[in-house]
Amino acid sequence: MQEIIRQFAIPERPNYISQRDEEHVFRAAFQSRIPLILKGPTGCGKTRFIEYMAYQLQLPLITVSCHEDLTAGDLVGRYLWKDDETVWYDGPLTLAVRYGGICYLDEIVEARKDTVVIIHSLTDDRRMLYIDKTGEVVRAHPDFMMVLSYNPGYQSIVKDLKPSTKQRFTSLLFDYPGVEVETSIIQSESGLSAEMSRRMAEMGANIRQLKGYGLDEGVSTRLLVYVGRLIQQGLSPYTACLSAISHTLTDDQEIRTSIVDIIKLYFGDFLAEESLKLAAQRENIHTSDEADSQ
Amino acid sequence: MQEIIRQFAIPERPNYISQRDEEHVFRAAFQSRIPLILKGPTGCGKTRFIEYMAYQLQLPLITVSCHEDLTAGDLVGRYLWKDDETVWYDGPLTLAVRYGGICYLDEIVEARKDTVVIIHSLTDDRRMLYIDKTGEVVRAHPDFMMVLSYNPGYQSIVKDLKPSTKQRFTSLLFDYPGVEVETSIIQSESGLSAEMSRRMAEMGANIRQLKGYGLDEGVSTRLLVYVGRLIQQGLSPYTACLSAISHTLTDDQEIRTSIVDIIKLYFGDFLAEESLKLAAQRENIHTSDEADSQ
Amino acid sequence: MQEIIRQFAIPERPNYISQRDEEHVFRAAFQSRIPLILKGPTGCGKTRFIEYMAYQLQLPLITVSCHEDLTAGDLVGRYLWKDDETVWYDGPLTLAVRYGGICYLDEIVEARKDTVVIIHSLTDDRRMLYIDKTGEVVRAHPDFMMVLSYNPGYQSIVKDLKPSTKQRFTSLLFDYPGVEVETSIIQSESGLSAEMSRRMAEMGANIRQLKGYGLDEGVSTRLLVYVGRLIQQGLSPYTACLSAISHTLTDDQEIRTSIVDIIKLYFGDFLAEESLKLAAQRENIHTSDEADSQ
Amino acid sequence: MQEIIRQFAIPERPNYISQRDEEHVFRAAFQSRIPLILKGPTGCGKTRFIEYMAYQLQLPLITVSCHEDLTAGDLVGRYLWKDDETVWYDGPLTLAVRYGGICYLDEIVEARKDTVVIIHSLTDDRRMLYIDKTGEVVRAHPDFMMVLSYNPGYQSIVKDLKPSTKQRFTSLLFDYPGVEVETSIIQSESGLSAEMSRRMAEMGANIRQLKGYGLDEGVSTRLLVYVGRLIQQGLSPYTACLSAISHTLTDDQEIRTSIVDIIKLYFGDFLAEESLKLAAQRENIHTSDEADSQ
Amino acid sequence: MQEIIRQFAIPERPNYISQRDEEHVFRAAFQSRIPLILKGPTGCGKTRFIEYMAYQLQLPLITVSCHEDLTAGDLVGRYLWKDDETVWYDGPLTLAVRYGGICYLDEIVEARKDTVVIIHSLTDDRRMLYIDKTGEVVRAHPDFMMVLSYNPGYQSIVKDLKPSTKQRFTSLLFDYPGVEVETSIIQSESGLSAEMSRRMAEMGANIRQLKGYGLDEGVSTRLLVYVGRLIQQGLSPYTACLSAISHTLTDDQEIRTSIVDIIKLYFGDFLAEESLKLAAQRENIHTSDEADSQ
Amino acid sequence: MQEIIRQFAIPERPNYISQRDEEHVFRAAFQSRIPLILKGPTGCGKTRFIEYMAYQLQLPLITVSCHEDLTAGDLVGRYLWKDDETVWYDGPLTLAVRYGGICYLDEIVEARKDTVVIIHSLTDDRRMLYIDKTGEVVRAHPDFMMVLSYNPGYQSIVKDLKPSTKQRFTSLLFDYPGVEVETSIIQSESGLSAEMSRRMAEMGANIRQLKGYGLDEGVSTRLLVYVGRLIQQGLSPYTACLSAISHTLTDDQEIRTSIVDIIKLYFGDFLAEESLKLAAQRENIHTSDEADSQ
Repeated sequence: MQEIIRQFAIPERPNYISQRDEEHVFRAAFQSRIPLILKGPTGCGKTRFIEYMAYQLQLPLITVSCHEDLTAGDLVGRYLWKDDETVWYDGPLTLAVRYGGICYLDEIVEARKDTVVIIHSLTDDRRMLYIDKTGEVVRAHPDFMMVLSYNPGYQSIVKDLKPSTKQRFTSLLFDYPGVEVETSIIQSESGLSAEMSRRMAEMGANIRQLKGYGLDEGVSTRLLVYVGRLIQQGLSPYTACLSAISHTLTDDQEIRTSIVDIIKLYFGDFLAEESLKLAAQRENIHTSDEADSQ
Repeated sequence: MQEIIRQFAIPERPNYISQRDEEHVFRAAFQSRIPLILKGPTGCGKTRFIEYMAYQLQLPLITVSCHEDLTAGDLVGRYLWKDDETVWYDGPLTLAVRYGGICYLDEIVEARKDTVVIIHSLTDDRRMLYIDKTGEVVRAHPDFMMVLSYNPGYQSIVKDLKPSTKQRFTSLLFDYPGVEVETSIIQSESGLSAEMSRRMAEMGANIRQLKGYGLDEGVSTRLLVYVGRLIQQGLSPYTACLSAISHTLTDDQEIRTSIVDIIKLYFGDFLAEESLKLAAQRENIHTSDEADSQ
Repeated sequence: MQEIIRQFAIPERPNYISQRDEEHVFRAAFQSRIPLILKGPTGCGKTRFIEYMAYQLQLPLITVSCHEDLTAGDLVGRYLWKDDETVWYDGPLTLAVRYGGICYLDEIVEARKDTVVIIHSLTDDRRMLYIDKTGEVVRAHPDFMMVLSYNPGYQSIVKDLKPSTKQRFTSLLFDYPGVEVETSIIQSESGLSAEMSRRMAEMGANIRQLKGYGLDEGVSTRLLVYVGRLIQQGLSPYTACLSAISHTLTDDQEIRTSIVDIIKLYFGDFLAEESLKLAAQRENIHTSDEADSQ
Repeated sequence: MQEIIRQFAIPERPNYISQRDEEHVFRAAFQSRIPLILKGPTGCGKTRFIEYMAYQLQLPLITVSCHEDLTAGDLVGRYLWKDDETVWYDGPLTLAVRYGGICYLDEIVEARKDTVVIIHSLTDDRRMLYIDKTGEVVRAHPDFMMVLSYNPGYQSIVKDLKPSTKQRFTSLLFDYPGVEVETSIIQSESGLSAEMSRRMAEMGANIRQLKGYGLDEGVSTRLLVYVGRLIQQGLSPYTACLSAISHTLTDDQEIRTSIVDIIKLYFGDFLAEESLKLAAQRENIHTSDEADSQ
Repeated sequence: MQEIIRQFAIPERPNYISQRDEEHVFRAAFQSRIPLILKGPTGCGKTRFIEYMAYQLQLPLITVSCHEDLTAGDLVGRYLWKDDETVWYDGPLTLAVRYGGICYLDEIVEARKDTVVIIHSLTDDRRMLYIDKTGEVVRAHPDFMMVLSYNPGYQSIVKDLKPSTKQRFTSLLFDYPGVEVETSIIQSESGLSAEMSRRMAEMGANIRQLKGYGLDEGVSTRLLVYVGRLIQQGLSPYTACLSAISHTLTDDQEIRTSIVDIIKLYFGDFLAEESLKLAAQRENIHTSDEADSQ
Repeated sequence: MQEIIRQFAIPERPNYISQRDEEHVFRAAFQSRIPLILKGPTGCGKTRFIEYMAYQLQLPLITVSCHEDLTAGDLVGRYLWKDDETVWYDGPLTLAVRYGGICYLDEIVEARKDTVVIIHSLTDDRRMLYIDKTGEVVRAHPDFMMVLSYNPGYQSIVKDLKPSTKQRFTSLLFDYPGVEVETSIIQSESGLSAEMSRRMAEMGANIRQLKGYGLDEGVSTRLLVYVGRLIQQGLSPYTACLSAISHTLTDDQEIRTSIVDIIKLYFGDFLAEESLKLAAQRENIHTSDEADSQ
């Protein structure tokens, strides 16, 4: 089992640019054995931050992406048949509880409420897990820490944590980084020039203004990094933006046109004659509705 | 099996500060073999009380957090394959019934009604459990006691106990402790000074007034203790309150602002110059909406 | 198997006080091999009556509390793996059918309609059970009797028996006992004095008048017995009534106040100075809303 | 397997009183290998008729009471583990198909539509059953006949057979027998006198008039026979009627009063002084609402 | 396995009377390896046609009646335990894919959409089936052909094929045969005289006019053949029509009366004195409502 | 296992006619290890394009048609019993992750959202898959690429990807090819003459105009190729168009008439005397409503 948990160590320091006192709060929560919720929109760096903290604290990081079919058994473990007998296999949660480490339940509100209750006895003073299938009571390792992530942006009424769960956690709020920080992220992640990276970050901030006007979520830092990488592979900035941003974010022609307009504002001048032609041809065919609406 | 139940003994006297005659009523119910429901809001001390009583009565305490997928089999037990034959393993309920002890079904209304009926024959004069899978009829140990918990605050119509279940229990009502009691709890649980603990308890009482004005549940004693512990780890009281209280309780900007205002009232003066700056920066970025609405 | 059914014998004469001709009708139905439905509210004595009749007729009594997840397999039986082969285990229904005895399906309307059809071939002239998993046809033992219970009080439209099931039974109606009978029940079950028992019975009749004014079910005889037992353990009558009646029956403050008012009417004078003080303090804290509404 | 089917033979001639040309039509359908639907209300004699025909044609009769959870596997068969290998067990449908006999699906509309399709290849010219789990194609035995029952009275829109199923059958309509026939049935089934049996049959016809005025189904012949048997066991006719008819048919006080009025009309005079008193007392307590409404 | 597929060969030439160019289109689709949908009402001859084509092309015909619980596993196959190991058994679809033959999914819209996607890779140029449970990729036999049937008459919006499925097929439309063709079908299938068969076919055409006026589907050719066979067994034409047509098609008294009127029009004169009396008596009892409405 | 993945290689260069810069974008995404979504209507060539790219990049292509019942286990793998022990079998996703290759999830929006989350850790920088059942963490092969397809045309609100999934992909937009390209496709796929192929392509463009006027999806390129192949098998162009286009696309008589009108426009003159007669007869019978509405 020990070998399994070792696979979850973070081998190299993740590339994380600190934004405020988040590392300080995380360390205080870890020292106090208080579980933590990371709140913030998609692709703003929550996952990168938890990887960074796991590296800093030298803890294994076991991530579980939550979904409606995640059962308590998926978290706790199950019996399997091996060499003519049933053998118990710890699930991801039990691994972290038993050997120490961060158990990170990503997008916890997607899990059914009934799955969530399994963490109740681990997130108050008891810090114990009763495995009914084996009859074992596991007392949590001192280095065990429970962390949830949660996107308040599209949290619906039916998908909120119940008070009895919520009131077991302290919280950290995240948001998209400011232009300065995002520029450094794009630059270091994609290898693009500082000037291009800044232009990208500014464009991103601009597109995020569309949120609430038909766009569910603003463009994430991750998508901006994608654009940078596609450019590095030889795509024109304009084509890369279309592919990774406007075509990805929405299927609504009107909103897509608004995004394309912002893209043109920042990268229209960059298009060489040749790529201009290609792009025009592309836009003509794919987005004829846009032309109509202009 | 006996070894399993032993794991559920409470080894040390839990830190419980009595509020009224709850211990007296509990003992009368236990002596009369009458099952009990603990009613009250999240984090007000129900779990701590039951641990305390289990310690006082020297009874094992088997807690089951209820949820929609909890089956009768999870409570009663199941067959497992071992050494080439199926072996029966008692579930948590059967353990308590057979060897004596408190079976504590936490948040019973979350369980499906069909799971609940399994306790019917245990909660009237019969005090017996028929295990259909083994054909065994288990007469309850004299020390077996059934206790349920239940939060009337967010009890919906669909999630109420049916009369035929309800009318098998006697009840104990809980609420948040008064300022005096809560001050001692915070002090003894977090190690904070008496003066700071009282300020915290008063702030808590103040925040609880917001309940019904957009806040589902008031701040629990547990969260106030969290704040104390985070402060002990070096966080400024203001930051600790933001993290454990306002960021945790709600994602609604307006209510969050109301809570932050109360926090400032109690801990605004405490902020050193330096931490003031940090907090301002933090608030500025995270709660820009609050600024707008002020 | 025979050993299993023996566990269901009623060893001692249950304490049952006859109300009308119910025993006469039951015996006629048993002699005619006609299945029976017991109709009446929660806690009025249906279960005690069936135990009494089982004792009188010297029949094993196999009770199944019905719920939505009860499958035909739970009633009929299942294969289990034992000593390297699958062995058939009769379920509770099959036990009663094969060896004779009363199969009592408690709260039948909670069972899914599809579970109910399994009893069709047992409740007409055929009196046979076909076990598809073993290919066996079991002819019912002459002493097999099917009895259902059913609470017309909260029977909803979706949870009624279908005509093709209903028209296989004869019926017995139950209701809460009159004051005389209930007084003797409380006295004999709790050991309380005759005077106190009568006061309790009268109070119960009074509280039952609230039914329909926000109270789903009146207070059951069982809860009145609980009060008696708690008093015997040293609780003041007032505290015992609060705990077993008003706190148990409802979470609605207004109805709770009405019940408390009736309790005061009957047991207010009984409170010694000391207990008066304690109760006042208790009521003050827990039921501040009541004070407001008075 | 052969032994299993033999259990389904009807050993003695069932007591069936023919009403019209139903036997003639049944024989024609059987000779033409055309499947049949029996339509009619609960307890009017459909089951008795099919038992009678099975006896007349010397065919085994395999009855399956349909319900929402009946799967195709329940009808066709399943593998079971025996002596270290999986052995196939024919289900009730396959038994009838393979060895000849009537497969009677009682209350077919209660079965899910998906279960019903399994009979499609058996109810057209192919008369074959493909068992996918064994890969076997079973050609129906010449004596295999498929019969369904169906109650058009409470057939809802969601629970109708689909046209592609319906149009594979010919149909027989049933209804409650006339007074003459019903009198002989009651007499021969319960041993009551001719005069009493006729009175019972007339009362039944009278009660059936209430159908549509709050009564889902009229009183069945079976319940009238019950009354006769309870009387034979010593119950007064009035008490027997209350128990088997008015208490069984409805929980609505108004309709119950209407039924009780009809019962009084036919059996009021029969009550001896003593039983009059008992019944009066009974009615007084149980049906106080009736008194009010008179 | 080969033995299993052999069971699906059509041994004798089915009695099929061609209506238009359907055989021509079928052959073209088979030669082009294009899958086919047969569209048309219940009992109009789709199944007979596919049997006929299977015989003509000397292909095995594997029919699966679709329903909501049909899983992909039912079509593709499953593992079974045999002689101490799990052995893979091809399902009906895999049999046809591997060894060649027509896989006929009857009433495809009844299947869940998710079951349908399994045929996607078989119904475009890939013509391959990936069996995930074995890791095998089966390339379709050149003689594999996929055929679906589908009744547009009661196709609801929720039960339509999705465009991505639909656009993989070519289609053949069926309808009830004209009077000439239907007369020959009735005659050859039931052995009735030409004159009687024509009268039956004309009556059928007449009854079909009622469709849309409360009748879901017109009377099928199959039911007309049933009538013929029942007559051959000695039933009077009038009784046979009632049994196989009016009693089968509807439970609505008004529509039934309309159908009975048409039956009388065609077969009223045929009734001998005796059978007239019997039928009158029958109609009198069963369809008293009809009398009222005339 | 290696043998399994080899089955998914594309042996011959698929016949794909490039439309714009799609190959360029695909290569850039593959080089940058960025996952890709292909968006576009049914039958426009997305599947052919992904086969073409798999051939070009010499990668195995593992396609999974998504549906509501697809579980995470179906993608990741499962244990099977073999030679007296359970053996792990990689699912299609794991195969691609482990050995390199394109995992193509076709019609991803049909999958339940909970299935989709399994790809989260594979579609960001981690590129790892945690198999909870084996405790193995699989780091993705450098040649692993995740590709989804998606039809925005009938994407409903309930069936959209969640932002946290969407923002992990870059996108490529597809549409039906222009007349030039489609002509070459029809010609090369069916062997029809250039002139006939062009006429077909023009007719297709014409029919697509009906989309939005009752037609869910325009006619796909695939159906036009079908027509070509049916003609090559000897069907008249008119009959082939009816069978593969109008009968397939819709069951609505009015829209069908509109399509038939367009078909006549393009292929009416082609009908020889004889085929004209046949078609007229066919249309007359099948589409009598059309005649009425003309």
